[in-house]
Amino acid sequence: MTETTTNPFDTDDDAFHEECGVFGVWNAPDASALTALGLHALQHRGQEASGIVSLGEKGFRSHKGLGLVGDIFGDARVIASLPGRAAVGHNRYATAGETALRNVQPLYADFAFGGFAVAHNGNLTNALALRRQLVRRGCLFQSSTDSEVFVHLIAISLYATVLDRLIDALKQVDGAYSLVALHDGALMGVRDPLGVRPLVLGRLGADQNNAWVLASETCALDIVGAEFVRDIEPGEIVVIDDTGVRSVKPFANTANRFCIFEYIYFARPDSVVEGTPVYDTRKRIGAELARESGVEADVIVPVPDSGVPAAMGYAQEAGIPFELGIIRNHYVGRTFIEPTDNIRHLGVKLKHSANRAAIEGKRIILVDDSIVRGTTSKKIVEMMRQAGAAEVHMRISSPPTTHSCFYGIDTPEREALMAANHSVEEMARIIGVDSLAFISLDGLYRALGRPGRDAKDPGYCDACFTGDYAIPLTDLVGHKEREPALLALNGV
Amino acid sequence: MTETTTNPFDTDDDAFHEECGVFGVWNAPDASALTALGLHALQHRGQEASGIVSLGEKGFRSHKGLGLVGDIFGDARVIASLPGRAAVGHNRYATAGETALRNVQPLYADFAFGGFAVAHNGNLTNALALRRQLVRRGCLFQSSTDSEVFVHLIAISLYATVLDRLIDALKQVDGAYSLVALHDGALMGVRDPLGVRPLVLGRLGADQNNAWVLASETCALDIVGAEFVRDIEPGEIVVIDDTGVRSVKPFANTANRFCIFEYIYFARPDSVVEGTPVYDTRKRIGAELARESGVEADVIVPVPDSGVPAAMGYAQEAGIPFELGIIRNHYVGRTFIEPTDNIRHLGVKLKHSANRAAIEGKRIILVDDSIVRGTTSKKIVEMMRQAGAAEVHMRISSPPTTHSCFYGIDTPEREALMAANHSVEEMARIIGVDSLAFISLDGLYRALGRPGRDAKDPGYCDACFTGDYAIPLTDLVGHKEREPALLALNGV
Amino acid sequence: MTETTTNPFDTDDDAFHEECGVFGVWNAPDASALTALGLHALQHRGQEASGIVSLGEKGFRSHKGLGLVGDIFGDARVIASLPGRAAVGHNRYATAGETALRNVQPLYADFAFGGFAVAHNGNLTNALALRRQLVRRGCLFQSSTDSEVFVHLIAISLYATVLDRLIDALKQVDGAYSLVALHDGALMGVRDPLGVRPLVLGRLGADQNNAWVLASETCALDIVGAEFVRDIEPGEIVVIDDTGVRSVKPFANTANRFCIFEYIYFARPDSVVEGTPVYDTRKRIGAELARESGVEADVIVPVPDSGVPAAMGYAQEAGIPFELGIIRNHYVGRTFIEPTDNIRHLGVKLKHSANRAAIEGKRIILVDDSIVRGTTSKKIVEMMRQAGAAEVHMRISSPPTTHSCFYGIDTPEREALMAANHSVEEMARIIGVDSLAFISLDGLYRALGRPGRDAKDPGYCDACFTGDYAIPLTDLVGHKEREPALLALNGV
Amino acid sequence: MTETTTNPFDTDDDAFHEECGVFGVWNAPDASALTALGLHALQHRGQEASGIVSLGEKGFRSHKGLGLVGDIFGDARVIASLPGRAAVGHNRYATAGETALRNVQPLYADFAFGGFAVAHNGNLTNALALRRQLVRRGCLFQSSTDSEVFVHLIAISLYATVLDRLIDALKQVDGAYSLVALHDGALMGVRDPLGVRPLVLGRLGADQNNAWVLASETCALDIVGAEFVRDIEPGEIVVIDDTGVRSVKPFANTANRFCIFEYIYFARPDSVVEGTPVYDTRKRIGAELARESGVEADVIVPVPDSGVPAAMGYAQEAGIPFELGIIRNHYVGRTFIEPTDNIRHLGVKLKHSANRAAIEGKRIILVDDSIVRGTTSKKIVEMMRQAGAAEVHMRISSPPTTHSCFYGIDTPEREALMAANHSVEEMARIIGVDSLAFISLDGLYRALGRPGRDAKDPGYCDACFTGDYAIPLTDLVGHKEREPALLALNGV
Repeated sequence: MTETTTNPFDTDDDAFHEECGVFGVWNAPDASALTALGLHALQHRGQEASGIVSLGEKGFRSHKGLGLVGDIFGDARVIASLPGRAAVGHNRYATAGETALRNVQPLYADFAFGGFAVAHNGNLTNALALRRQLVRRGCLFQSSTDSEVFVHLIAISLYATVLDRLIDALKQVDGAYSLVALHDGALMGVRDPLGVRPLVLGRLGADQNNAWVLASETCALDIVGAEFVRDIEPGEIVVIDDTGVRSVKPFANTANRFCIFEYIYFARPDSVVEGTPVYDTRKRIGAELARESGVEADVIVPVPDSGVPAAMGYAQEAGIPFELGIIRNHYVGRTFIEPTDNIRHLGVKLKHSANRAAIEGKRIILVDDSIVRGTTSKKIVEMMRQAGAAEVHMRISSPPTTHSCFYGIDTPEREALMAANHSVEEMARIIGVDSLAFISLDGLYRALGRPGRDAKDPGYCDACFTGDYAIPLTDLVGHKEREPALLALNGV
Repeated sequence: MTETTTNPFDTDDDAFHEECGVFGVWNAPDASALTALGLHALQHRGQEASGIVSLGEKGFRSHKGLGLVGDIFGDARVIASLPGRAAVGHNRYATAGETALRNVQPLYADFAFGGFAVAHNGNLTNALALRRQLVRRGCLFQSSTDSEVFVHLIAISLYATVLDRLIDALKQVDGAYSLVALHDGALMGVRDPLGVRPLVLGRLGADQNNAWVLASETCALDIVGAEFVRDIEPGEIVVIDDTGVRSVKPFANTANRFCIFEYIYFARPDSVVEGTPVYDTRKRIGAELARESGVEADVIVPVPDSGVPAAMGYAQEAGIPFELGIIRNHYVGRTFIEPTDNIRHLGVKLKHSANRAAIEGKRIILVDDSIVRGTTSKKIVEMMRQAGAAEVHMRISSPPTTHSCFYGIDTPEREALMAANHSVEEMARIIGVDSLAFISLDGLYRALGRPGRDAKDPGYCDACFTGDYAIPLTDLVGHKEREPALLALNGV
Repeated sequence: MTETTTNPFDTDDDAFHEECGVFGVWNAPDASALTALGLHALQHRGQEASGIVSLGEKGFRSHKGLGLVGDIFGDARVIASLPGRAAVGHNRYATAGETALRNVQPLYADFAFGGFAVAHNGNLTNALALRRQLVRRGCLFQSSTDSEVFVHLIAISLYATVLDRLIDALKQVDGAYSLVALHDGALMGVRDPLGVRPLVLGRLGADQNNAWVLASETCALDIVGAEFVRDIEPGEIVVIDDTGVRSVKPFANTANRFCIFEYIYFARPDSVVEGTPVYDTRKRIGAELARESGVEADVIVPVPDSGVPAAMGYAQEAGIPFELGIIRNHYVGRTFIEPTDNIRHLGVKLKHSANRAAIEGKRIILVDDSIVRGTTSKKIVEMMRQAGAAEVHMRISSPPTTHSCFYGIDTPEREALMAANHSVEEMARIIGVDSLAFISLDGLYRALGRPGRDAKDPGYCDACFTGDYAIPLTDLVGHKEREPALLALNGV
Repeated sequence: MTETTTNPFDTDDDAFHEECGVFGVWNAPDASALTALGLHALQHRGQEASGIVSLGEKGFRSHKGLGLVGDIFGDARVIASLPGRAAVGHNRYATAGETALRNVQPLYADFAFGGFAVAHNGNLTNALALRRQLVRRGCLFQSSTDSEVFVHLIAISLYATVLDRLIDALKQVDGAYSLVALHDGALMGVRDPLGVRPLVLGRLGADQNNAWVLASETCALDIVGAEFVRDIEPGEIVVIDDTGVRSVKPFANTANRFCIFEYIYFARPDSVVEGTPVYDTRKRIGAELARESGVEADVIVPVPDSGVPAAMGYAQEAGIPFELGIIRNHYVGRTFIEPTDNIRHLGVKLKHSANRAAIEGKRIILVDDSIVRGTTSKKIVEMMRQAGAAEVHMRISSPPTTHSCFYGIDTPEREALMAANHSVEEMARIIGVDSLAFISLDGLYRALGRPGRDAKDPGYCDACFTGDYAIPLTDLVGHKEREPALLALNGV
């Protein structure tokens, strides 16, 4: 069908992409308005599309759209069309091919036992295998999202209660995921058995009796004035209903393998993860980087915006002035295309420009969070040299990204990862810097408050740096002979 | 969910509505362009939405839209996006609530055995019952169309071939339907066992070897230059592939109960049905009406456009001049709403205006095809009197519509049908005519070339006039307690 | 500028095009709703765009759009945004290049003396010359419409009152036009000195004291329930204010040269022009045609829709049956393009199809209103022969169209007019008919109730048949060296 | 008319607003693509709308739109529709009422002497007075922009050449403005006699012979790879044609009164103004502020994004750590409305959130660029206290804003300016800070490299701080009795 299939291993952009944010509210007036605010605070986790499903006296209501939360839900009439005291919402990052409205979450289904809405952040590693089985059984898929596998598994489960059906479904899937789900009697939150993707529980103030919030990050609790209660645990299901919060732990084996890259890049700096502010962690990583690979320089220049806290930590540790040597243009529209070859050869940077005043004649240390394909780093270094930098050193606040992520982060295939194919020296030469250094794996763990990486129990998922994939990669085997068209009942 | 449920028994308009047209092509270059032309010729059967699925070397492609065929498929780039030598298409009539893009046909599904597209004209009378069973089994519905029931039944069938799965599905459904379906190896056409809805087979010219067309009416063959071959028979499946046309007749009991109202109103006057031109039949009905219920008058005035041929037949038989006493405005937009009470009281007619020159001081006979609720007839009669008609007689080219249609025509419930609740005399008084007459049931059959209605083998479905429902009305039992929300996996 | 210039001498379609309708109301509640209804009734005079300017307590309000009246003004909220007891409106026909919203009338200007809205039907024959003078004087044009010339002439007039400024402007323009204009104190209606374009005055019922209506045709009075008062006279200005209707006749020389083609084709059949119903006139023309050029035949077939009344008149006079041998498809979308050469060679007719039942084996007489380029006639004749017509005779209810219209009708240049370049015999051969005849000029005048054409005082503008151009064609001289870009201050 | 009039003295937002950016290119291939890039770099000066007029072999072409440059001009087909080697462009900031497409610049007019496009940044202080005169003369206005006054003045000028007409027009207007204008023979750039608004000249590289660029800021030269040549001088007209650049100085009295607020807030930090990098100046202002009003604290927190460089300067001078205590959310959509009272009472901050990790328990110094109404400052201080700040001191890198700007910056009326109505102590109390200090006027001048403010020749326009309005405020007198409807020929 005309539906373009998404190759999760192919990106056209030299950056990691955030992979969705989820939010849920139970028992609060204006539940959908709170959800819209929460999604706004989680906008950095996905800017392509958003959806909210609310549950009111007259049943479930849904609204979804492509674009920013404020544009989709900023109109009071839209919020008014989503009445009720419970709601779940979702922000989506999506590559071009799959930005179809029918892929926008939360997904909703009317089961024989009632309505059910679910939103999920993450990736199932056996979704295609499951999908194939389900299609053989006669299930018709309407979207190309992993989430729909959940919905079908719940629909065909032989168990009676929603919770038992959900557990039945969860036991069949592999992957890294956080879910929020809403049915007529409860709001539920789930983290995968290794807790790779984040999910936190919050409580709305004294005046809002027994009002609860689930969110991908604490910054979404802050915006609605909710008090942080605790992280959902790996493998835990929380069931929130009018009697309170109940915890179910259906998995025999769980461990904590929280995504270390959330600390480095994804999470918002003002979020608190596992009791530690992300901002502090990033500054500590920067300081550790300064200790590990210091170099003489005149100024520290962050690659905005993600490199800023690490650069500040580096500058403070190194005692070198921190300067805004690169200005970021936040007004880049969705569709800016370089229109002619002539223009393309200008090597125009639409997002970044050099601040010559801070750079000219200076030895600079660029601090960035990661190098993926290396193409952007190369352009930025060129820009620095054109603006008169005397020396350009680059320091990266993560170890070399040598492996692809299959747990919810949109990374290129290994052949496209610069660090998977080149030594650090080669990378320095290609990118054109006078020196290049990454934080060491142990240094990263030290910044997180550990003595170093414990290979037996690292405590984090760091597969992108180590290849230590803790969750089986079922779909990856036989990836090449994968069906060209995803199996879908195509509504549009 | 926000999805508005469709009540098939409630219309807001005083008219019958056509219920869809289908078209399919096999083995012709420009298959999708031919399909667009065919759908254009079938536009009178549905003006709300259209869709085409084509099958080319790179698989299936689909395009759907709301509006007229010319607006959806008039752009050559759209046709170019639908390559291939086979295609199926669909025009849809739809009441307001269900005009969602995801309800637009053809429906497409990727089954385990390959892609499958289907478009259907008609109505299943046990669709809700089947839907309930399928949902209990774990099937997730994405649309509120009957067609999706077919698709799920095919998906879960235990048979191996597409044809056997289709037969398996057809044996479970009751209703009046014509289907065109396309899969990788064949184009298929189906008429229900009683042949209530039409479907014809055509062949494209000598230069297009083994190129075949299926269409709801012959006027769609004419526009693409296809030669009429034959009507598909009641209960017949035709399977068209590169070896030619094969006929499968899986039903033990079939009979011909073609919808008599297609002759009276639905079919285009230039179509030929069962070997008889619709135009001729309508004129013969008008002549029969003149013989049965002649009255002295100065002019015959058709209610345009559907009443015109019957009025011509009446005029020729009666020897009374035929005059355009009512002018139809074809430019009524989609959304014309009478904006204020003051305006509403003007009794404005947006579609019709009186042509005083043809009416003033005259005794007129209005000829129309049917009376549904009677509200439009009443307005037209008032308009005639205001324009100075001396007498207004009304003659109707169908018997009184006393029963609702459940076989694909969108009629009001019985309580809203004027003829179900009033004698002809009462109707005449309410509508305000000096006399009113309908053609008799036997007269109608005479116009169709029979001696009269044979109650044992009428040869047509005339349930709307007789209540003789030949197909069981499963869903109608228990209609009141029907679920308020249709069971759907809601993509949008 | 990107604005495409409009060449009024070039059309891409083989038909005349109606050139705008105007409507105005004074002193009625719901003035804008009445105007929308009036414009709907005048939709046949222009389907490309519509606009209404209303005058209420808070001043002037405007709404304009591209498309049908019902689509632009059908929403009650739009009408509510146009409050007041006075309004003027306009329907526009436009060739592709100039369908810019800024060309949609009524035009509105805030003059030093107050607001002023004007809508006009027709064409100025010295608009370019005036425009050039005004631009040299420093006037900035924003549209490419003739109407803006009026507005500038009024703006720069040295007279004090609006009426005097309007007269000052009218005396400078040549052309065929009807205007409705609205300012703070009055509604005004104007017909050009020769009365080429129509304008009628109506009065709203007893309950609406002193409520007046101006409209292009009486069918627009009928729809709002207004009583016909009289035609505005050639060269007359009517000024309607709260004291009643006043007539001003500023031109020394006036004459009646009403467009004879309004009778033949443009006006709606249910309109009454100069006391004569258009429908009757068309039938009389058909009867005259039968007398002048009768031929043996089996059936009379009208080319729908415009040829129908003349065909009926012909059939009644000749005593030959009238049959619908051509079915018109009213659902042709705006953008239907034949997508491939292969399809184009099929010679598909999107608007017309043959009704074989009425034609096969018959000698037919096709009755149409005119032949412009001849291409459509040729296609229709081919279609008739393919449907089995034994003989095809064509009778035209107007004399040969040998000259272009410069007075408001969009006709091709002379070199494209078939009758300007071929004898009737040649035309018959090219079109492919067995015989061809046009009504004679004197026959046409006889059908209008005159003994024949009086060359000294024809009483009608018939320049398209005679070349007798009664209004000077100033702009036409030097047409070839006309500026490529119209002079416009380009807002959008 | 429905056109909402814009009150330039009323804003609904607690911030200054940038007032437009302009860009022009002469003699470069891909002129419109370069212009799109230049406008992208100037996006901070206006995000509501953009337009480009190009001049190619076939004359002028125009494209305009509402939204960001990338969204309007990112499509290569749009750029392809704007061919030629010369172009001018404009970014617009606009308050809600006037965001009509017809107000979007550049304005284009076809004069008697040829086409002319103009884009302007700034404000005329006698625009209404001139407009009134022009309307009395018979000029019809189509937009509500000041720029159209220019166009009419040029159109009616009695001088012969474009340049003389431009000078004639310039001599009649008062105000602060920079213009770029394009006609068939030249690109022109103008700065007002006091040089209040910026305009720079650049040259495209050796491979682009005699290719010139005009832009509001140097950052727009950088993005297209143009070399900075010089600032256009106050009162200077540069005429760029194929013979090179010519300077015309038609004004007797000129002086340099460049807008000091461009340094403080408007200009992009990587731009260079009058030879001084804006970034350096802002840091020096911050350092001066630290010297003038130092206070003991633990961290310096910038109010992002505009307060960042001053905060860095402050932190470096004071030796206090610089921390990101406030995180800015860059994804705020256009239409985010707080939907319910309940939500509004949460005091949600959509643009800013507190970074508790950097603030909690700390004495903080907030550094911002200005206080307008004070409402945002109050909210931010509350947010800091809720996040646990022990003390909150506020330091402002501009003197108190006591007067409105009439020279192109959208400021509230005086009664809404906090500093116009309260002492610094009162402001501190209202805002809720422990201490508040503004940089002194002399301190500001010192940071700009002067010994202090020289009242006789300040060298900058600082009217917003001093009330020293160097350009007459003609329209302001009699502001109250200003016409409610702007005088406009309303195209849409």
